[in-house]
Amino acid sequence: MAAAFSPATPLRFRPYSTLRFLSSYPKYLTKQHHSFPPLLHRHTTARRRFFCSVISAALPSGERTKPELMEYQKGEMGSKVGEFRKKLKIVDIKGGADQGLGRVGQTLVVMGWVRTLRVQSSVTFIEVNDGSCLSNMQCVMTSEAEGYDQVESGLITTGASIWIQGTVVASQGSKQKVELKVEKIVVVGKSDPSYPMQKKRVSREYLRTKAHLRPRTNTFGAVARVRNALAYATHKFFQENGFVWISSPIITASDCEGAGEQFCVTTLIPSTSEAADSPVNAISKTKEGLIDWSQHVCMLLGRPIVLNLKWSLDFFGKPAFLTVSGQLNAETYATALSDVYTFGPTFRAENSNTSRHLAEFWMIEPELAFADLNDDMACATAYLQYVVRHILDTCKEDMDFFNTWIEKGIIDRLSAVADTDFVQLTYTDAVELLLRANKKFEFPVKWGCDLQSEHERYITEEAFGGCPVIIRDYPKACCPPSFLRSRHSICGRMMMGKLWQPWICWFLELLLIFALFMPSGICMTSRLIMLCIFYNQVGELIGGSQREERLEYLEDRLDELKLDKENYWWYLDLRRYGSVPHAGFGLGFERLVQFATGIENIRDAIPFPRSPGSAEF
Amino acid sequence: MAAAFSPATPLRFRPYSTLRFLSSYPKYLTKQHHSFPPLLHRHTTARRRFFCSVISAALPSGERTKPELMEYQKGEMGSKVGEFRKKLKIVDIKGGADQGLGRVGQTLVVMGWVRTLRVQSSVTFIEVNDGSCLSNMQCVMTSEAEGYDQVESGLITTGASIWIQGTVVASQGSKQKVELKVEKIVVVGKSDPSYPMQKKRVSREYLRTKAHLRPRTNTFGAVARVRNALAYATHKFFQENGFVWISSPIITASDCEGAGEQFCVTTLIPSTSEAADSPVNAISKTKEGLIDWSQHVCMLLGRPIVLNLKWSLDFFGKPAFLTVSGQLNAETYATALSDVYTFGPTFRAENSNTSRHLAEFWMIEPELAFADLNDDMACATAYLQYVVRHILDTCKEDMDFFNTWIEKGIIDRLSAVADTDFVQLTYTDAVELLLRANKKFEFPVKWGCDLQSEHERYITEEAFGGCPVIIRDYPKACCPPSFLRSRHSICGRMMMGKLWQPWICWFLELLLIFALFMPSGICMTSRLIMLCIFYNQVGELIGGSQREERLEYLEDRLDELKLDKENYWWYLDLRRYGSVPHAGFGLGFERLVQFATGIENIRDAIPFPRSPGSAEF
Repeated sequence: MAAAFSPATPLRFRPYSTLRFLSSYPKYLTKQHHSFPPLLHRHTTARRRFFCSVISAALPSGERTKPELMEYQKGEMGSKVGEFRKKLKIVDIKGGADQGLGRVGQTLVVMGWVRTLRVQSSVTFIEVNDGSCLSNMQCVMTSEAEGYDQVESGLITTGASIWIQGTVVASQGSKQKVELKVEKIVVVGKSDPSYPMQKKRVSREYLRTKAHLRPRTNTFGAVARVRNALAYATHKFFQENGFVWISSPIITASDCEGAGEQFCVTTLIPSTSEAADSPVNAISKTKEGLIDWSQHVCMLLGRPIVLNLKWSLDFFGKPAFLTVSGQLNAETYATALSDVYTFGPTFRAENSNTSRHLAEFWMIEPELAFADLNDDMACATAYLQYVVRHILDTCKEDMDFFNTWIEKGIIDRLSAVADTDFVQLTYTDAVELLLRANKKFEFPVKWGCDLQSEHERYITEEAFGGCPVIIRDYPKACCPPSFLRSRHSICGRMMMGKLWQPWICWFLELLLIFALFMPSGICMTSRLIMLCIFYNQVGELIGGSQREERLEYLEDRLDELKLDKENYWWYLDLRRYGSVPHAGFGLGFERLVQFATGIENIRDAIPFPRSPGSAEF
Repeated sequence: MAAAFSPATPLRFRPYSTLRFLSSYPKYLTKQHHSFPPLLHRHTTARRRFFCSVISAALPSGERTKPELMEYQKGEMGSKVGEFRKKLKIVDIKGGADQGLGRVGQTLVVMGWVRTLRVQSSVTFIEVNDGSCLSNMQCVMTSEAEGYDQVESGLITTGASIWIQGTVVASQGSKQKVELKVEKIVVVGKSDPSYPMQKKRVSREYLRTKAHLRPRTNTFGAVARVRNALAYATHKFFQENGFVWISSPIITASDCEGAGEQFCVTTLIPSTSEAADSPVNAISKTKEGLIDWSQHVCMLLGRPIVLNLKWSLDFFGKPAFLTVSGQLNAETYATALSDVYTFGPTFRAENSNTSRHLAEFWMIEPELAFADLNDDMACATAYLQYVVRHILDTCKEDMDFFNTWIEKGIIDRLSAVADTDFVQLTYTDAVELLLRANKKFEFPVKWGCDLQSEHERYITEEAFGGCPVIIRDYPKACCPPSFLRSRHSICGRMMMGKLWQPWICWFLELLLIFALFMPSGICMTSRLIMLCIFYNQVGELIGGSQREERLEYLEDRLDELKLDKENYWWYLDLRRYGSVPHAGFGLGFERLVQFATGIENIRDAIPFPRSPGSAEF
């Protein structure tokens, strides 16, 4: 019997373990603690007690038997740990070039969640989704199928999880090439009628309050898959180019200047469940009412620290914060391993309740040694093109979905980004080009004016025939509004040259600005030129700079900014011992997800968004 | 001239940009703010102001010119953003099968840091390392080489960064097949004589105080590369098997029970630089002296929150903590997308100053839907074997280094893990096997006794001929010391069956225990059986379980543990709507790095370790 079910692609599941599925199905099982799975007698092989994965029995005989294995292993005493195999999923069945036609006639098992159920007079259609792709497996069932009574008794509803064994047949419908003719169906877990992800469309605002269930919708399933593809493409790009992934620290005591935007990390604040020995009043304070860290290092409540280490001493013995950037740490490794990148979470305690800000977001921060801003810009462009090409190639179905439902034309926009060379020219050249243009602009052009959309559109679409254009060496006086909008305005302090030297590029919906600013705290690390790539729906997408590698310049800048050089001793050491020109950029990963999917609100681009007042789930 | 330098593999660097290198070399440059790079006149193309990456000029003519590009692009107004190319590194030169012999005769450029300098009567040897591999490029120089004066003036010292152009020649030494005959050398950044990474060996304790420079040593360079390879192999394994990467949140308000071990995240505690408007005294307190979160949600100091939002309202409006595990969040996505994994930082505020604990560490947490513990175990085993095989294949030189200097025999140990099937048997069978053995043990064997090393050794080495053995269904009474040692002992509360059902395996230095425990806060999520894989040098390596998917059981367990069901409403929802059997495991990434490199202290397995009192860098 087992052989009859064997599909061409191995499954982890075997049908005889159906019983175990029913454990979550109260009708078949009275509730008894610790009786399921039942305890077996000695000498019963372990695998029988499990429901799934009874794979080893299905192995071709003779496979993997090693001569050194002794008799115990082959007998009842001891057996091999099951071999792990890729699970057969709907994308494997339908996702190929033939859309599943090559599997017609195969008997196989599909497991997933019911999206819709349509009961017709002679046949019942069940749409099953397992999250491996956007499209469902249409399962067609007659009353002859084993388990059909579960349809009749109303157990198979939207949201229920099911196990279906059937035969792949050519579909009569136009929506898919193949469907599954159901032979046997088992409800694994039923769905309460209150299931909030019913077929009717709900707003994304509402879905944010159901962040635990929203990945079961088309939109959030697609976002999750594209996000995953972008992350993997990120690793692939950098690994293929010889970069080493570095985990920059999350908790940091070294970046003090930007503390106003940083979250404090502490064990001094008690949780409500630990009332007795940790009142807030016990926190030592200075005369000004600030936390006296020195006291906490030594003792609290008059007790030596060894007696009550946890509450008398804050964990790190000094103020510690959540990182705002891994750049400084990445520089450390870049000046040892040449090219590195980070990919990890970073934080901002900014009170920005916008669709473009998160309190917790993932950043990608490459750092290139022996490199300047041109290398940096080339790397950022190549990276962006690589990941965009990757999702266009590997996430076709999801991208079609976004193209239809989220942002019309996104595939064209992304294809243009992936395939077209970026062009660069100076602001001054751009102005001259506009002045020479045989065209009347609504906003007159003169050197020093801000470039308007009509100007940018002319340059990219007419002058350069659709190429993304980077305009650099922007005059200081022209601060594009989108740039000012992007963060707390700290531009004033950041302007250090006569020119701002930002670069601006507008192409379709892509706006690139290479400019001179940084999150507070690390502004002093840059040489004259910074780059920021903006995408007008999401704000800053990429920001980077060539770092200041000259010790004396860096020390002067720290003095100018009234920062204590002592705090940056290790960062200065990098300039003291074998300093090299180096450059890097930071890319907000959720903004990349927005850029690549067209999702408008950044809170829909991350599984569990954190923002002011919101740390649920 | 440019053509003469062109190597077979494209370089990002071109020699005519040498000038820019000298910017960090005070002798050649008087200090002038904002004068370097010099501001250029209009119409000068941008790339000339940069030092490196002047690649586009080296492109084969005609490459990448698109018909739609218009005249501006080809003229002075506008030019293409440089093409990004993989940098030529020492590993590319020497790392191939021929160890560089195929490149003999090529002229190329090497950039890196001086490891040693040996001046002999007629020739000077410079060992250069760029971090791309363990071994240096030996550069041989006579007094005829351009820039030889820098040797004479003592600028080329250990730690200095240099740029060398030379010809690859067969080496006369036995240590390497090829070396570089120097034609031209430029010191990019000199190294102060105080450079702490001199050739003499220094202790790893000392190097921890120099975490910013230690990647320049052989050991930490190798650890960084192997760590990187392990991370990439992790992504490759899961991606190839259809798993979706999920970023679980770092800041969480939902996991309240384990708060004692969690870091609190707050904006209530002021940093020292913000004295005036944020005294600790202003934190609203309850009668018991605890923080009154309700007050902070509404107002502080009598002012409505809108006036001083930041300090009157803590950021998330309730206690928020750093995550201890992404499991619950991963389950959410597994019950929508079938198979997912997390790979991100997690935190413990435990005051454990040991060589096996970090306050901040990276975790890999796969979660498999429609799966049980057998699948889980198969997945964990396959994963472990995959990543181990990956580093043995791709990090040969580094692994040889560890084999020689860090842990003798590590390659054999890892090869055995990668290539040998794991065998499983019950504790009871193991005891019977030991009783039947024709062997006298120091510790007598009887059912209920703890298995000693001699027993484990007999089972793995003699009974199963060298296979890793998993012993499962351990009696509750036998708590292996390594298990108790592993964490706060919360075993008592976790034991829910008659048997503990841990699995223990000892093989060479690999100790596997599959047991029933969890970090506090998520213990209630497991079904009867948990698994932990221990490695005896590092403690718990992998811990996992089949999760409790039955709603009524889970609710009962929450009641038993006196946890508020309201706090877990969304987690319970996963059981309410289409629940499925699912399982997963967690792997501490730094412990995997220890396991794979033999590095004894976990603080040497992560770039910037965080532990009590230590958040430097």
